[in-house]
Amino acid sequence: MSLQSVRDWMGDRPPAPATIPLAATFAEVVSAITEGRKGAAAVLNDDGTLAGIITDGDVRRAFSRDLTGLTAADIMSPDPRIIAPDARMSDAVDLMTQNRIATLLVVEANRPVAIVHIAELMQAGYVG
Amino acid sequence: MSLQSVRDWMGDRPPAPATIPLAATFAEVVSAITEGRKGAAAVLNDDGTLAGIITDGDVRRAFSRDLTGLTAADIMSPDPRIIAPDARMSDAVDLMTQNRIATLLVVEANRPVAIVHIAELMQAGYVG
Repeated sequence: MSLQSVRDWMGDRPPAPATIPLAATFAEVVSAITEGRKGAAAVLNDDGTLAGIITDGDVRRAFSRDLTGLTAADIMSPDPRIIAPDARMSDAVDLMTQNRIATLLVVEANRPVAIVHIAELMQAGYVG
Repeated sequence: MSLQSVRDWMGDRPPAPATIPLAATFAEVVSAITEGRKGAAAVLNDDGTLAGIITDGDVRRAFSRDLTGLTAADIMSPDPRIIAPDARMSDAVDLMTQNRIATLLVVEANRPVAIVHIAELMQAGYVG
């Protein structure tokens, strides 16, 4: 089963990932992650390409800073781990395991098309 | 390997879990989770028994409320999923999978003795 591609697992119309612009406020970041229900949001450059990721851990660590004027660009992790839709699901699991990350961005043509959470993969039987 | 007990996996002296009292402030909650490095902290009653858990997701959701005067008791999830040290590691993985949770409290005599993060189990080869 883990030979299945990420694209096949997602289906034709995966739920759009939570996305925010680099200039999003801290409140906007929090809202986007909550609405997306994956514990993370993709940060986009002005042209829609991927700039970074903000996870619940990044949000928590930001609380120790002055939130006034803080933007997505300030708290994101730039250059996040990504996977292509044509990759195998087993590669997605390996990437998350090796990097100890709970969320992984699916990226095509430099644009995030989905966010995969490890809990989803566990429930789908890819891990465990 | 997943027949191994949680206790055997943890070893004799597991790192103490991040803990906070019910009356901890929001800032104290955030600090405790960050220091514990598991993305979650156990909330304790005055007698040291388990009252609840606060995860990074709970911290993020708290931001939509007025943080002034907010305590651990206000944002914790009471009655969290727990596992006993004598349980099998496979039971821990099943519990996390079925409940879609990334962190699990190990509890003995009503006291939290460790926090297990799914990324640790993946790296140890219990999942994936």
